[in-house]
Amino acid sequence: MLDRLFKPRAIAVIGASNNPLSIGYIVIENLRNHDFKGPIYPINPKADEILGLPVYKSVVDVPGDVDLVNISIKNVLVPKVLEECGRKGVKFAIVHTAGFKEVGEEGRRLEREIVDIAHRHGMRIYGPNSQGIQNSDPEVSVYANFTFVPMTQGNLSLVAQSGGVGEVFKLHLHEVGMGIRMYSSFGNEADVRMNEIIDFYGQDEGTRAILVHIETLSDTKEFLDIASRTTKRKPILALKTGRTPEGAVAVSSHTGTLVEQDTISDAVFDKAGVLRMPTQDELVQTGIAFSSQPAPAGPNVALITNTGGPAIIAVDELMAGGLKLARLSDQTKETLRKSLHPEAIVSNPVDVVATATPEHYGITVETLLADPNVDSLFINFVTAPFVDLDGIAQRIAEAGQSATKPILCVVMTIEKWAGLIRRIRSSGIPVYAYPETAARVLIAMTRYGRYRGRAYSEPPVAAADRARAAAILSAAQPGFMSQSDLFALLQAYGIECAPGRPVAGSADLAKAAQELGFPVALKIDAQDVVHKTEAGALRLGIKNEEELDKAFRELQEKFASKQSATLVQKMMPAGKEVIVGFKRDPQAGPLIMFGLGGIFVELMRDAAFKLAPLCREEALEMIQGIKAYPLLAGFRGDRGADIEALVDILIRVSNLACDNPGIQEMDLNPVFAYPAGRKSVVVDARARIR
Amino acid sequence: MLDRLFKPRAIAVIGASNNPLSIGYIVIENLRNHDFKGPIYPINPKADEILGLPVYKSVVDVPGDVDLVNISIKNVLVPKVLEECGRKGVKFAIVHTAGFKEVGEEGRRLEREIVDIAHRHGMRIYGPNSQGIQNSDPEVSVYANFTFVPMTQGNLSLVAQSGGVGEVFKLHLHEVGMGIRMYSSFGNEADVRMNEIIDFYGQDEGTRAILVHIETLSDTKEFLDIASRTTKRKPILALKTGRTPEGAVAVSSHTGTLVEQDTISDAVFDKAGVLRMPTQDELVQTGIAFSSQPAPAGPNVALITNTGGPAIIAVDELMAGGLKLARLSDQTKETLRKSLHPEAIVSNPVDVVATATPEHYGITVETLLADPNVDSLFINFVTAPFVDLDGIAQRIAEAGQSATKPILCVVMTIEKWAGLIRRIRSSGIPVYAYPETAARVLIAMTRYGRYRGRAYSEPPVAAADRARAAAILSAAQPGFMSQSDLFALLQAYGIECAPGRPVAGSADLAKAAQELGFPVALKIDAQDVVHKTEAGALRLGIKNEEELDKAFRELQEKFASKQSATLVQKMMPAGKEVIVGFKRDPQAGPLIMFGLGGIFVELMRDAAFKLAPLCREEALEMIQGIKAYPLLAGFRGDRGADIEALVDILIRVSNLACDNPGIQEMDLNPVFAYPAGRKSVVVDARARIR
Repeated sequence: MLDRLFKPRAIAVIGASNNPLSIGYIVIENLRNHDFKGPIYPINPKADEILGLPVYKSVVDVPGDVDLVNISIKNVLVPKVLEECGRKGVKFAIVHTAGFKEVGEEGRRLEREIVDIAHRHGMRIYGPNSQGIQNSDPEVSVYANFTFVPMTQGNLSLVAQSGGVGEVFKLHLHEVGMGIRMYSSFGNEADVRMNEIIDFYGQDEGTRAILVHIETLSDTKEFLDIASRTTKRKPILALKTGRTPEGAVAVSSHTGTLVEQDTISDAVFDKAGVLRMPTQDELVQTGIAFSSQPAPAGPNVALITNTGGPAIIAVDELMAGGLKLARLSDQTKETLRKSLHPEAIVSNPVDVVATATPEHYGITVETLLADPNVDSLFINFVTAPFVDLDGIAQRIAEAGQSATKPILCVVMTIEKWAGLIRRIRSSGIPVYAYPETAARVLIAMTRYGRYRGRAYSEPPVAAADRARAAAILSAAQPGFMSQSDLFALLQAYGIECAPGRPVAGSADLAKAAQELGFPVALKIDAQDVVHKTEAGALRLGIKNEEELDKAFRELQEKFASKQSATLVQKMMPAGKEVIVGFKRDPQAGPLIMFGLGGIFVELMRDAAFKLAPLCREEALEMIQGIKAYPLLAGFRGDRGADIEALVDILIRVSNLACDNPGIQEMDLNPVFAYPAGRKSVVVDARARIR
Repeated sequence: MLDRLFKPRAIAVIGASNNPLSIGYIVIENLRNHDFKGPIYPINPKADEILGLPVYKSVVDVPGDVDLVNISIKNVLVPKVLEECGRKGVKFAIVHTAGFKEVGEEGRRLEREIVDIAHRHGMRIYGPNSQGIQNSDPEVSVYANFTFVPMTQGNLSLVAQSGGVGEVFKLHLHEVGMGIRMYSSFGNEADVRMNEIIDFYGQDEGTRAILVHIETLSDTKEFLDIASRTTKRKPILALKTGRTPEGAVAVSSHTGTLVEQDTISDAVFDKAGVLRMPTQDELVQTGIAFSSQPAPAGPNVALITNTGGPAIIAVDELMAGGLKLARLSDQTKETLRKSLHPEAIVSNPVDVVATATPEHYGITVETLLADPNVDSLFINFVTAPFVDLDGIAQRIAEAGQSATKPILCVVMTIEKWAGLIRRIRSSGIPVYAYPETAARVLIAMTRYGRYRGRAYSEPPVAAADRARAAAILSAAQPGFMSQSDLFALLQAYGIECAPGRPVAGSADLAKAAQELGFPVALKIDAQDVVHKTEAGALRLGIKNEEELDKAFRELQEKFASKQSATLVQKMMPAGKEVIVGFKRDPQAGPLIMFGLGGIFVELMRDAAFKLAPLCREEALEMIQGIKAYPLLAGFRGDRGADIEALVDILIRVSNLACDNPGIQEMDLNPVFAYPAGRKSVVVDARARIR
C-alpha cells in the first residue's frame, strides 16, 4: 500500500540546499508553502539552516521517525544514503535524481542496486528520475514535488508518466480555479508502478475522477484488472501519447500487419472502460466536469441558448459524437411557451432569445431538468449587454445546486464579466469558453455512462477437445503450422473447416477427389508459403480428374524445391468472405480481429479489435462495429450472413487463443459465412507458433 | 464598393436613445468609446441630448453630409426613415431591426420594400436583422455595432453570418491581445452580401487574413470566384456550421444519395483554396498565427522542447496532420552538439533539456531556422522554475523578429509568468497553451501554403460532337434517360460504352446477338427501373441463343406492365469496377464523383468529390484520393488500371456536365477500368434530366 507515500507523517529532504534554483530547495519551499502537516527535515552534511529549518548531516541523525525522503543528490551517491534511510526505517524514497536506466547499462545497474537496497530494508523506491507526489488532503497537505503549479484542494487525482504533461494538466486545472486531490509523476517506475498508484486513487474516497497520462503501459494485464475494477466506481480519463506508428514490426500474416500498438491501447481502454481522450485539453475539461457532475443516464441532451449560431455549432458537435436531441414533452413545451418571450423558439435547442430575463432562464432550466426525456442539459450563454447578466448567472447557479442530471454551461464573454463565470462555477456547474469544448466533454461523459452500464455476460467456455488440441500443438514445429494441423486444431475447438486431406502422390489424387467430390481445390501446404494466392500455390474450382492431374503436376513442378505437402480440399459454396484472427500481445494477451475478407481489412482498414476473452456481447459488437456490417446483415435484398454463427466462431477463436499461449498469431482467411441457419466454414488459415 | 460602409465620414444613429439597454444608446457609446473620426448624429424626434451629443428629429435635419446610418427603430417604421435617408444622400443603412424575412411572408414583403426604397435612392441596405460593422483603421475607427468586445487595431478581418459566432471570434482574439482590422455581421443579406464583404477585405491592404463564419452560402458561384481570387493573396479561414445532415433530400441515383450539403461545401472550399476550420477555437488560433507568420514553404517542421512528454504530443499531432519531421543537416547537428548541454538530444525534436540556458535557446532557434531542410519551427517551452525564464523568452522573441520562416511557440506556465508570453508575443510569435493547438495551427498553415502553391492547368475542353449531344438531349423527356440515348450522349463526348442496341422483338434477338457476339447481357431500359440489379431487370453472361430466348421471355413477362425497351449488350471483359458521376448543385454547379464500384462507395463512403470544371491535376487527385486507390495503382501483384484512361473519362464527364445544364445527375456505374493502354468502358449508366 502507498499510504505512507501519499500520507507521510514526516519528510526528510536529502540534498536540501540554500540554492533557490536547486531541487532540494524548491521541494522544501513547496512543502512549507503548502503547509505540510508533519515535520520537514533538511539533510545536508555542509549546511546548518535552510529556509529557517535546522539541517541534519544524515537522515539517521533526525530525532523523529521519517516516512518519506526526497532525494536529489548525485546518482552515484544514492545507494549510500538509501542504506541510511533503510536503517532509519524510512518507508518510501522519492528519487528525483536522473542518470539511471534512461542513460544505459551503467544506469540500469545502479537502478537495480537501489531497488535491491530498498527492498532489503522493506523500503520502496519512487522513481528514480521522478518529479514527486502531492496530496491536498488537509490532514496531510503534502507537496513533495519540485514543480511550480500551486496546489489547492479538489477531488481529481492525477498520475502522469511525463512530468511535463502532468504539469500541463495541473496548470490548466489551476487556471480555472479547480483544485486537485493527489498528483504523481513517477519517472522510471523502478519499483512503485503507475498501476499501484491508479489502484490507490481508485480506493481513495476523496478522489472522484482519475486523470492519467501514459506513454507506455508497463503491465497491461495488471492495468486491465485494476482499471476495470476502478471504472465501475469512478471514471478514468487517459491520454495515451506516442500514437504515430514508429518502429512497427513487420509481421507476415494479415492480422499481424494491422495490429499497431495504438490498436492494442484502444482495445485495453475499451475493455477496461477507460475514457481515452484525444488531447490534453479535452482530458482536463472533461475532468473538470466529472469533478462535480454525474454521468448522464442516456444520450438525450436538451439545449438552452440565447443566440442561434453557437447553438448550431453545439448541435453539430453533439450529433457528430452520437448524442441525441431530447424530444421535449408536451408539458415542457407548454410551460415554456407560456413563460418565455413570444419570439422564443420552444423546441430543442430552446432559444430563449437575447433579451431573455433571469426568470426565463430559471424556468427553462427547471422545466428541462424535470422532463423525463432529458438526460443532460447544455446551456449556451452569450453575454448580451442589454440584460440582467448577474440575475441570469444567479438563476443558472441556483439550478445547478439541486440538479441530479449533469449540466454544462458555455459562457461567451470578456474579462469584465468574468464574475459571471465564477458565480456559475461556484454552484458546481462547469463553464466552458466554446460550445465545441462543452459538447465534447458531454460526449465523453455520456460514453462513461454507457461503459458503466454495459451488461456483459461471462466469456463462455467453448466445448472443445482440449487434449487433442494440446497434442497437435506439442507435436508442431515453431513457425507456421501446416494447414492440416491447423484445421485439425480448429476442429478440436468446434470450428468447421472445409473438408480436405493431403495427397500422398499423383496416384492418390483420384481417390481423394472421390472422397470429397468435385469441384475441389488444390493447394501447397508449406511453412514458407504463407500467402498462397500471391505465391501461385492455389488452384481453385477444379471440376474433373483431368484438370486435377494437370494442376497437381504444375504445382509439383513449381514448388519442387520446397518441403511441402499438397492438399486436396473440397470447394465450398461461395459465402460472404470474412476474416477472423488474433495476434498475441506479450502484455495484453490475444487481440482478436474481425473483418470482411478481400481488401476490406487490408486496404480500407475496416476491422474490429477486442481483447480476449470475448463474451457474446463483445463478439457481437465486433461484428456490428465494422463499416461493412450491412453486407452481413443483408443489404439491398441480399440475405446476409448468419450472425450467430459468426459470434460462435469468434468465441471459439477467443477460447483457442486463451488456452494456447504458444500460438503467436492466427488468421482464418477466408471464412465463408452463409445465410441464417448455416455454420460458417474456414476455407484457408494460417497460424504461427513459437 | 463598400468604401462608405466601412469608412464612413459621418454617421447618423436613427433610434438613438438615452436608455443604456437600447441598441440606439449602445451604438453611440461604442462609436464614442472607440473614438470615431467623424461626426455622430443621434436621431430621435423626442430627445434633445444623448451622451452629450445634440439630437436631431430627422436625418434630413442633420447639418452635414451622412454616409452611414444605423437604424434600430420598429420594423414598420423603417421604410419611412429610409425615404428620408435617401433624400439626405445617405450611402449605406445598417438596419439592426429584426422582424423581416425571418418572421414570414409579411416580413419578406417589408424587406423587399426597404431594398426597393434604398435602390431608388442609390443607397444600400446592410441587414436587416444585422449586428453592424467595425473598422479599426485609425483614420476611421468605426464601431457601428451594438456588441461588447472592445476593438483594437489589427490585421485580421472578420465576417460572420451569425453575430453570436462573430462575437466569439472577437472575444477570443481580444483575450490574447490580438486586434482586428474589420468586422461585419450582416444579418439577412437583403442587399449587401457576404461575398462583397469578402471581396472588399481581399482588396484591403490592411487585412492580412480573413476569418469567415458561414451558415449557408447564398451565391456559391460568386463565392468561388471571389474566394479563389482572394486566397492567392491572403488566407481565408472558414467555419461552416450546420454540418449534421438535416433535411437531406432523398434522391434516386447513387451519386445523388451521397452528396450531402457538407460535401458540396468541402468541394467549394477546396476549389477556392479556402481553409475550412473544424472549430471556432482552431479558426481563431490559426488566424492569430497568420496575423504575423508566413505560410510554411513545405511540410518539414523542426521542434525544440525542454521536456519530452509534450514534444511527443506535438509530434503525434503534427504527423497525424501530414507534416514531416525535418531531417536536420549534419552542420545543424554539429553546431547544436557543440553548443548545448551534453545530455541534450540533438535530433528532431531537439530536446535542449529542462536546464537549458537562454543562450542554448538562442543558438538552437537560429541554427534550425538557418537549416535549409526546415520549413517551420515549433517551440515547446515548459517554465522550469530553476532557469532564467526571462532570458529564454527574450532570446525566443529576438529570433522571432528577424525570422522569415514561421515560428509557433507553446508556453506551458501559470499566471505569475504570463509576462513571458507577452514578451514572446510582442515579437510576433504566436504563443499557445497546448502543443496540440499549435500543431493544428501549423498543419492548417502548411495546407494554405500547399493551396497557394497548387499548379493547376486550365481545365481541358474535350473534343466532342456537341451538336449531336444537344440534339439527343432536346429530344429526351424529363426524368431518367433511356440507356440508348444516354450511351449515345456519352459517345458524343468520346466516352466509350459497351456495344449494344435495343431489340425490336424476339425475332430480332438472334440478329442483335450475332452483331455483338456472345456472351451478351439483356437488360430492361425503362424510366422507372433505375436500379436494374435490385429490380431483376438484368441478365448477365448469356452464352447462346437458347439462353437469350429464355431470358428475353422472362424479362418480357416480368416487365409487361412497364413502358420499356429491351437491350442486348455485349458482355465486356471483367475490369476494375469504378463509378464516375455527378450531381448538379443549383448553386455550385456539377459536383463530380469518383469511386470504386460495388459497395465501396455506398457502404464504405470511399469516394472523392470535386467541382467541375476539372483540370487534369484535379482529376488525378480524385483518383488518388480514395482509400482504395492501391487497387487501381496495382496491389499485390495485380496490374491495376490505366490511370490516364480514368483521368480522361473524368475530364469528359466534367465537360459533359458543364456543357449541358439540363442534366441534373449522372451515374456511370459500373465503368470497367482495364490495365494500362486500354480505355475504360461504361457498362451501365443512368442520368436524370429536367
